[in-house]
Amino acid sequence: MDKVKKPIKGNIIVGQSGGPTAVINSSLAGVIKASRTAGVKKIYGMHYGIEGFLQEDIIDLDDYFTTSHDLSMLKRTPSAFLGTCRYKLPAIEGNEDVYEKIFQILDKYNIQYFLYNGGNDSMDTIKMLSDYAAMHDKTQKFMGIPKTIDNDLPMTDHCPGYGSSAKYIATSMKEIIRDNESYGVSKPTICIVEIMGRHAGWLTAAAALSKDVDCNGPDLIYLPEVVFDIDNFIERIKELAAVKKSVVVAVSEGLKIKDGRFVCELGSSNDHVDAFGHKQLAGTAAYLANLVKNETGLKSRYIEFSSLQRCAAHLASRTDADEAYNVGYLAAEAAFNGHTGEMITIDVISREPYIEEYDMFDIHEVANVERKVPKAWITNNGTYVSDEYVAYVRPLIMGNLQPYTAAGVPIHMTLKNKKKK
Amino acid sequence: MDKVKKPIKGNIIVGQSGGPTAVINSSLAGVIKASRTAGVKKIYGMHYGIEGFLQEDIIDLDDYFTTSHDLSMLKRTPSAFLGTCRYKLPAIEGNEDVYEKIFQILDKYNIQYFLYNGGNDSMDTIKMLSDYAAMHDKTQKFMGIPKTIDNDLPMTDHCPGYGSSAKYIATSMKEIIRDNESYGVSKPTICIVEIMGRHAGWLTAAAALSKDVDCNGPDLIYLPEVVFDIDNFIERIKELAAVKKSVVVAVSEGLKIKDGRFVCELGSSNDHVDAFGHKQLAGTAAYLANLVKNETGLKSRYIEFSSLQRCAAHLASRTDADEAYNVGYLAAEAAFNGHTGEMITIDVISREPYIEEYDMFDIHEVANVERKVPKAWITNNGTYVSDEYVAYVRPLIMGNLQPYTAAGVPIHMTLKNKKKK
Repeated sequence: MDKVKKPIKGNIIVGQSGGPTAVINSSLAGVIKASRTAGVKKIYGMHYGIEGFLQEDIIDLDDYFTTSHDLSMLKRTPSAFLGTCRYKLPAIEGNEDVYEKIFQILDKYNIQYFLYNGGNDSMDTIKMLSDYAAMHDKTQKFMGIPKTIDNDLPMTDHCPGYGSSAKYIATSMKEIIRDNESYGVSKPTICIVEIMGRHAGWLTAAAALSKDVDCNGPDLIYLPEVVFDIDNFIERIKELAAVKKSVVVAVSEGLKIKDGRFVCELGSSNDHVDAFGHKQLAGTAAYLANLVKNETGLKSRYIEFSSLQRCAAHLASRTDADEAYNVGYLAAEAAFNGHTGEMITIDVISREPYIEEYDMFDIHEVANVERKVPKAWITNNGTYVSDEYVAYVRPLIMGNLQPYTAAGVPIHMTLKNKKKK
Repeated sequence: MDKVKKPIKGNIIVGQSGGPTAVINSSLAGVIKASRTAGVKKIYGMHYGIEGFLQEDIIDLDDYFTTSHDLSMLKRTPSAFLGTCRYKLPAIEGNEDVYEKIFQILDKYNIQYFLYNGGNDSMDTIKMLSDYAAMHDKTQKFMGIPKTIDNDLPMTDHCPGYGSSAKYIATSMKEIIRDNESYGVSKPTICIVEIMGRHAGWLTAAAALSKDVDCNGPDLIYLPEVVFDIDNFIERIKELAAVKKSVVVAVSEGLKIKDGRFVCELGSSNDHVDAFGHKQLAGTAAYLANLVKNETGLKSRYIEFSSLQRCAAHLASRTDADEAYNVGYLAAEAAFNGHTGEMITIDVISREPYIEEYDMFDIHEVANVERKVPKAWITNNGTYVSDEYVAYVRPLIMGNLQPYTAAGVPIHMTLKNKKKK
């Protein structure tokens, strides 16, 4: 990656998009620092991503960040500081007015550098805007900053945000196993833990990180990459319950059975409704815990990590936070150097010792593509993950970014409480 | 409290009972340290509480704890190191054989001091055994060590275990609010968070601790001490959604409507079953989130802290861990000094600065009694808690007991991985 050589031509804007992560604001901090270093006059933020930008909802970030303490606090703030959105730009053809509006706003604020921080869907925004700019000889530069707890972006070894979620899952999984082991004289207890990831099992696989000399890890790990067989699952539970008192299972929210239905849809397949006539939808783990209880008579319960796995900044991985900062910083530098229509990627040169490098890739190879867990890393007939996977993920959870705390609770930076002017 | 003056007459045994906490093992560490200091020859543990004890499942703790590092690691291990149980001794009359068996085992191991660490139900064990001992001129001493995340033991200002759970709830609640605030351009998002506490709202009230300059806290807090009015709840949600984009509500799992039914029972009141003919039970928050979606058309989701709120040792409160250690230490000392049929209590002399003292109370005043959140601390027509409550709980969450970590994940002490001989 080259240091900034070209003269800075105008202002910069950065947006956050898609599901938040524990370290998405570290990327924002990287963008701000790189822009300051390069001497950019104005650093703008999109309020609620491209959706807010289209309403000219723009934040002057100079109002918020004046000291290095401000940036340190921003890094320790989970979730999207600028606000996020799930909004996909329409096809260019037939919607030129939308694109013209965007470029009018860019011109109005003299914005030459447009950075967008998100996952597969969000990278589509960079693709569309850089394509439109190329077609219409616009001078603005558009760069993508990778971010997703799902870890499903292609071309990059892994995605910022994933490491911190994996650390949360590993830590919480071990604590849950400890809790579940506490009981034991009477009947076995089956605990089913639901982890995010509709199509890719990267997050669910991270449950294996709880394994060490003090913990055998979950007994079973089910990823959405493998068709889920309910009968086989019940058999495995019975086998385990016959030999041990605590059985803990990690399941992806996206498990599907052979006919293509999600497991979480099965609970409502009889079209049952509540007292008020409302359809009730249970989650995957809730459904399976009920099933275990009914099919085996064993005591069972479920736990859903839900949005905690993407916002638990108090368990952020230092490695992850640093990499998130770096990709933000480097995306800004790349834009200043004239790059456009690309996304920063992370290459891992060595996992032990851990050494990473950064590169960038054509956004057309990234946008809308989902990368799944390799089949070779899924073991035991689809019920566990391999040591190779653990070796892959381990360095990404190393180190802590300790939160700042006040009165016993982490304290964060927000748009409301930090405005300077 | 007196230092140990009487000569030590035999060995000691300690048991853990009921739901685990993040700091229950700190009390165990206190018992071990006090026993070593007093020169007790043998320190035994009950494997799975009184239930295991009745099967003579007894652990020699000298096999595990030889260094101060061992005790430090024990303090940082969540959940019941010895294993726990939910087992209530039968009435003495007609079940003398059970009691005789217990005292035979005590005699066999020359155990003179019997300590039991638990909540209301567990203190019943101390009551029954000390009553039986008094009736039959047994010499053994029986002391209770308070422990419950529910904070519902009487006579003590608060219960060890509660502070760490409150800290987990406060931290996670703030991170969830941050996450929920991320979205905002389009429709409001209602997030309903379910917190433990079937009868007492102490844990749910702790959600208010997330409030500070950077966070308004949850918008509504519903405790089980107040009858839950569904229509009123929906009205409040509509009012909030009209003026803000992120609405977060804390609800106790134990909310009941006017006719006495739990909210979590309502979802199944139409006796609906799944595709396999199984009755499905949703939680309180899941039920209410569904209801909000159906009644208002607003986007809604739910989060359940489930057992994470009692096992997240990585967020343990230092104050809580220290107090848990102290009550364990002092219960052992009290037993050595001849006390029996009592439980150690915590008195708070001053909340600011925080100064606590320890005392003990007749177990008959403690066992099976539940203390609820005072009505005076429940405000806004049953939808929030007062500043007085926050001042009460704040000192209990102060400080951190950092976990030991290895390879990026907390590492714990267990019966399996730490046996010395």
